[in-house]
Amino acid sequence: MMTQEWEQATTPWRYAILGTGALGGFYGIRLQQAGSDVHFLLHRDFHQVQQQGLVLESPHGNVRLSQVNAYPSVSAMPRCQVVIVALKSIHNQVLGEWLPRVLADDGVVLVMQNGLNLEPAIASIVGNERVMGGLCFLCSNKVGPGQIRHLDYGVVTLGDYGPNYQPMGITARMQRVAADFQRAGIPVTLIEDLLLARWKKLVWNVPFNGLSVVLNAQVDALIQHPATQALARELMGEVVAIAASQKRIIPEDFIQTMVADTLKMKPYRTSMKLDYDSGRPMELVALYANPLQVAQQHHVPAPRITQLYQQLQFLNDGLLAHATHSA
Amino acid sequence: MMTQEWEQATTPWRYAILGTGALGGFYGIRLQQAGSDVHFLLHRDFHQVQQQGLVLESPHGNVRLSQVNAYPSVSAMPRCQVVIVALKSIHNQVLGEWLPRVLADDGVVLVMQNGLNLEPAIASIVGNERVMGGLCFLCSNKVGPGQIRHLDYGVVTLGDYGPNYQPMGITARMQRVAADFQRAGIPVTLIEDLLLARWKKLVWNVPFNGLSVVLNAQVDALIQHPATQALARELMGEVVAIAASQKRIIPEDFIQTMVADTLKMKPYRTSMKLDYDSGRPMELVALYANPLQVAQQHHVPAPRITQLYQQLQFLNDGLLAHATHSA
Repeated sequence: MMTQEWEQATTPWRYAILGTGALGGFYGIRLQQAGSDVHFLLHRDFHQVQQQGLVLESPHGNVRLSQVNAYPSVSAMPRCQVVIVALKSIHNQVLGEWLPRVLADDGVVLVMQNGLNLEPAIASIVGNERVMGGLCFLCSNKVGPGQIRHLDYGVVTLGDYGPNYQPMGITARMQRVAADFQRAGIPVTLIEDLLLARWKKLVWNVPFNGLSVVLNAQVDALIQHPATQALARELMGEVVAIAASQKRIIPEDFIQTMVADTLKMKPYRTSMKLDYDSGRPMELVALYANPLQVAQQHHVPAPRITQLYQQLQFLNDGLLAHATHSA
Repeated sequence: MMTQEWEQATTPWRYAILGTGALGGFYGIRLQQAGSDVHFLLHRDFHQVQQQGLVLESPHGNVRLSQVNAYPSVSAMPRCQVVIVALKSIHNQVLGEWLPRVLADDGVVLVMQNGLNLEPAIASIVGNERVMGGLCFLCSNKVGPGQIRHLDYGVVTLGDYGPNYQPMGITARMQRVAADFQRAGIPVTLIEDLLLARWKKLVWNVPFNGLSVVLNAQVDALIQHPATQALARELMGEVVAIAASQKRIIPEDFIQTMVADTLKMKPYRTSMKLDYDSGRPMELVALYANPLQVAQQHHVPAPRITQLYQQLQFLNDGLLAHATHSA
């Protein structure tokens, strides 16, 4: 009994990376580099990565992994104890097929995506007790096939998921995942209430992702102009009000702190702006439609977020129309 | 006595065009073509127009006026009975100097600009009883020095100005100006309440001028997409609500009619979009700041117009910054 417990505790967890892009690639490479057993799902880059491995350029030093467990589809992957979902959330409909094939019986899905209400949809596939959320504060780009460039940050906030986002506290599996990440040099913050963390991140993401696309601007320009700084504060206020309708209370000085922190940031293109500029569809459902659905359910007025979402829908459909034309 | 009255009635009125661009050029050329005595103020194009005259290309036939009363400054102009203000309204600060020099003692200033509260500012220069408003529904461009291309429409709505925009009814001088315009082939509608007409035009201008700039789109695309059509209706609703606070009641079906009419329009770049695309500052005060000031005075919520205005201020200042850099 003692032996078995000890073995359980020391058998390393196997990681799957679903979506080896700027984010999944970065964390997967770091984990493997630190000794974790990592299995990467790739799509277009599969052959190149199989032959040449994965490359991470980083201010902390460059890394080349020549031996990579690379797969062109989930059917060939082993079952993993931690399945990191690092796709763009607009593709999450594939997860209904993928997760049951790759998730180990005692495993957990770690949702490292932006936005609201992605966990409940994934819980409906794998069960409420098999989901965890990860909020990433990372600046990185995919610069070529299997080539990731890390620019700055990387800290992960981990929170466990419970039915209807009920707070789960600090769980043992969170601590175990955190230990693996920290061994890989990635700072981890553990939080007791995943939904609160999701809302807090939306306070920043809702204004700056959308406005950077609509106004074709970087974050530093938006925060420095008085009109758009005022608008960003008002959008943040609406996010805080919707969060409150779900009994997630974000303190009053949070907006002020977030504005002050943003004023100190270097020129920065948001992930939505990167998507838009590359002609990729934007993550509008997780970042805008889902929060607005909560607002509607609880009768919280959110005219400004609604307007920004309407503008983004127009631009997103313009992208899609253009993609169709050029296809 | 009879003779004098008859003479007064038949002495043609002399017209000044302050701002010989797409709009002032079009109406001035048409008036002169029909026999009116027209005097054109020009800036950059003065020498070229003095030598080569003015040209109007139009679906109704092309016109070249080789004899043009062209002036490089108001100081050389004769006093005129009708002074048409056809500048971009952002330059209206020059009118304090110009109007007293060019307006005849018995003359009237005809404000052919877009937006709200331009007439009161002009009345403070020339007197409440010397101002008239003209709302133009015109598609035209300046395509070269002294060269105007008329694309479509041209109808003018005339309304007389009274202190604080009090309705003045149909006045004799309105009818006389209308007769001159109609002789020049320009359809004229006379209205009793200038402020109501200004608000009705804002119902269209506020959504479509701003959104066409922010979303880099033509009007047909904006009205056809469900998200931006919904947003346009909501913006229109805010304009109607602000107008109501000034006791100008726009009927409920007006928005529906306006949307239906807009759906029938050909692809169309708004005047604000033309300005923005050419790197010219936008008429944000008359179209956004002044209506929002009324909203604030009367405590009418206008979050959507405010947001659009905030976005436009950001873009406008980007233009100015760019202009400074390239200067």
